[in-house]
Amino acid sequence: MRTAYHHQLDELSVQLGEMCGLANEAMRGATKALLEADLDATERVIREHDRMVVMRGRAEREAFALLALQQPVAGELRAIFGAIQIIADIERMDALAVHVAKIARREHPNRALPDNVRACFADMAKVAIALGDNAKQVLMSHDPERAARLREQDDAMDELYRQLFSVLLDQNWTDNIPAAVDAALLGRFYERFADHAVEVGRRVIFMVSGDLPEQDDVSTY
Amino acid sequence: MRTAYHHQLDELSVQLGEMCGLANEAMRGATKALLEADLDATERVIREHDRMVVMRGRAEREAFALLALQQPVAGELRAIFGAIQIIADIERMDALAVHVAKIARREHPNRALPDNVRACFADMAKVAIALGDNAKQVLMSHDPERAARLREQDDAMDELYRQLFSVLLDQNWTDNIPAAVDAALLGRFYERFADHAVEVGRRVIFMVSGDLPEQDDVSTY
Repeated sequence: MRTAYHHQLDELSVQLGEMCGLANEAMRGATKALLEADLDATERVIREHDRMVVMRGRAEREAFALLALQQPVAGELRAIFGAIQIIADIERMDALAVHVAKIARREHPNRALPDNVRACFADMAKVAIALGDNAKQVLMSHDPERAARLREQDDAMDELYRQLFSVLLDQNWTDNIPAAVDAALLGRFYERFADHAVEVGRRVIFMVSGDLPEQDDVSTY
Repeated sequence: MRTAYHHQLDELSVQLGEMCGLANEAMRGATKALLEADLDATERVIREHDRMVVMRGRAEREAFALLALQQPVAGELRAIFGAIQIIADIERMDALAVHVAKIARREHPNRALPDNVRACFADMAKVAIALGDNAKQVLMSHDPERAARLREQDDAMDELYRQLFSVLLDQNWTDNIPAAVDAALLGRFYERFADHAVEVGRRVIFMVSGDLPEQDDVSTY
């Protein structure tokens, strides 16, 4: 028989999935804002962050209540322990999308990106959003194999990030400094978004198995 | 009478303080590496990160064991709940110091920073390390007023960060693009380090009072 307790646990899991979905929507909107100088998309991403803050608070309170009232053990305790950590990762993913949107807004009606890195950003965004979508699936399915694959998928982001910096740090590049500064920060935002999605996968593996895979090394940038 | 349980709780608190101290040492070393092109300091920071990863794993396991075996309630549950979140913040602080050190290493024997932003970085480092030291004190004292002051102290960082970007985004600046790109990333690393210290304070306030102060808005960069 499913108890109220299990219902609450499922509920928390659904909330994490929804939060991750919201963060992914934010990164989709922020990317549209960035690549197409779409001001409506920008404003929507920034406005919606309030909703994420509310959801974060609610999810944290519910995780706390589950610990306080149900005194869970074993797999159920791992699920809540992991949820506490994942909530913070997802909130950061959303905040990173807001950072992207704010740079797009500052440059509006111009496009924030120099032409020679636009294609790279289109690819980075694609990888970041795919990772976010997969993290959401992992949160709903608790499938450890799919969770482990997030780390492999992140290799594509690492490669794009390296490509971006090989352009930005090339002494022959002649675009203006502000454009390069924005591109560096924007690159970092996409790369961190992807890292947090990988971290969600790592935490789901812990929830399911009790083993926490090692983190990758701290990258050079 | 103090029980083994309370001893374990105190132990976790001590571990958080030590981890925060290690992250601060890392940022001190990384700053020396950056401002003085000190290669020994660089290598030490990068090497010591392994110790942080081990400490993080240990602290997480102990927090988990306390939840599993002691089924804490009220203030003690809040202390462990907060600890889970703080562990992640401190590990990030250390990783950000490693990022700074790695940029210093890449540029060695040159100095990574253009002359016109060196003073700004010296100030940012001072504020970041002071915030880290205060966060450590807060972790050991659980003093909510001191914890709340971290947020005010962070205003100085926000101001320095704005100053830095007013230089970097000034169309008249003529230094080379790679130097500007590095300065933008380095600025962000110091600013995020400070944010995590503030977040530690916010979590300690929750531990002590059960109230979680609101987060600041997502900044423009």
